[in-house]
Amino acid sequence: MKIAILGTGMVGNTIGTKLVQLGHQVKMGSRTATSDAGQQWLRSVGGAAQIGTFADAAAFGDIVIDCTNGANALAALRAAGVENLRGKILMQVGNPLDTSRGMPPTLTICNTDSLGEQVQREFPDVRVVKALNTVNCDIMIAPSRVPGDHDLFICGDDAAAKREVTDRLCEWFGWQPANIVDLGDITNARGTEMFLALWVRLWGVLGTPHFNIHVVRGT
Amino acid sequence: MKIAILGTGMVGNTIGTKLVQLGHQVKMGSRTATSDAGQQWLRSVGGAAQIGTFADAAAFGDIVIDCTNGANALAALRAAGVENLRGKILMQVGNPLDTSRGMPPTLTICNTDSLGEQVQREFPDVRVVKALNTVNCDIMIAPSRVPGDHDLFICGDDAAAKREVTDRLCEWFGWQPANIVDLGDITNARGTEMFLALWVRLWGVLGTPHFNIHVVRGT
Repeated sequence: MKIAILGTGMVGNTIGTKLVQLGHQVKMGSRTATSDAGQQWLRSVGGAAQIGTFADAAAFGDIVIDCTNGANALAALRAAGVENLRGKILMQVGNPLDTSRGMPPTLTICNTDSLGEQVQREFPDVRVVKALNTVNCDIMIAPSRVPGDHDLFICGDDAAAKREVTDRLCEWFGWQPANIVDLGDITNARGTEMFLALWVRLWGVLGTPHFNIHVVRGT
Repeated sequence: MKIAILGTGMVGNTIGTKLVQLGHQVKMGSRTATSDAGQQWLRSVGGAAQIGTFADAAAFGDIVIDCTNGANALAALRAAGVENLRGKILMQVGNPLDTSRGMPPTLTICNTDSLGEQVQREFPDVRVVKALNTVNCDIMIAPSRVPGDHDLFICGDDAAAKREVTDRLCEWFGWQPANIVDLGDITNARGTEMFLALWVRLWGVLGTPHFNIHVVRGT
């Protein structure tokens, strides 16, 4: 499968490397076609990996995974170009975290809006699915690092796109379908992005980003 | 133990009834000493239950449980009176939910502040512990309704008050100490209050408010 990764940070690096290891054709996009981070990743990963601009990657991918920082997501998607994204599934992973005022970060968007919604509003012809944004990237690609049942949350306006994302997360990374909770339309991204306010604090208390939550139903 | 419950809504009612059943002396406070909701509760519960104003209840309790709606919490505490609250532990349960724009609710305070912090700032001599605000009131008083491990989060600036609250939650309601996560100082109320944005959506998806989350640590 041809997969575009937008963003050369830790998340893009981790997901891109895993997908290359699985034998997929992966093109990682950044602001410049030959960014240092992109070239470093290319050397480390080998295989069927390529780098390019955001537009190069988006044009290449059958599916696009937006791994940019939340602060850069809209600019990166504009650079990727609506013509390269139209009709494609966009897994939108980043959260609108603001670390400029120190830790724990606040959110630049929340409560009455979300980054997921902003992306879907600006790109109405893109099939946006908010996904993977509630776990550290090491858990994204290896859920078995956390024992037992624990859950991912997805949301988006396109039901078929959400089914496809669910299938890919299970196939690529080993998530169980029963542990992927579809919250509904893209406005539910407010819920998963605002969960980060608790997530960053649990990271501090637990001393590791390698954890997740399990939703347990009662009577 | 003499316990003050502030608020005659579903949360105050549920917690107050449970504490009366356990044999505690409970006084439930509301805006007026003889509110309909308070009198109805008094008739339903019997035992060593009393009702009164917010000030009556706060003066009576060795510990004060603020079960008012988040929107009314500060007004209720002002009515309770700083002289009646000084030096006491205040379990602050309500969340700053705004349902005026429909469901799911938004928060009236979030991201850079929280209701827990606002209460502690306005009442610096009160030992505020944010607690119980991430589960439905039926789960608060009966965690065994949710099978297996699942967690509560507390925070506050007074370590001894947090230990006391932890002990009471275990003794009164059957929570396990290992399932009560101390997030740190009162600013961490931002994390637990903002979790409500996910909680209300999970309520919708699961079709019941009777659920909780378990934080699972990985490797």
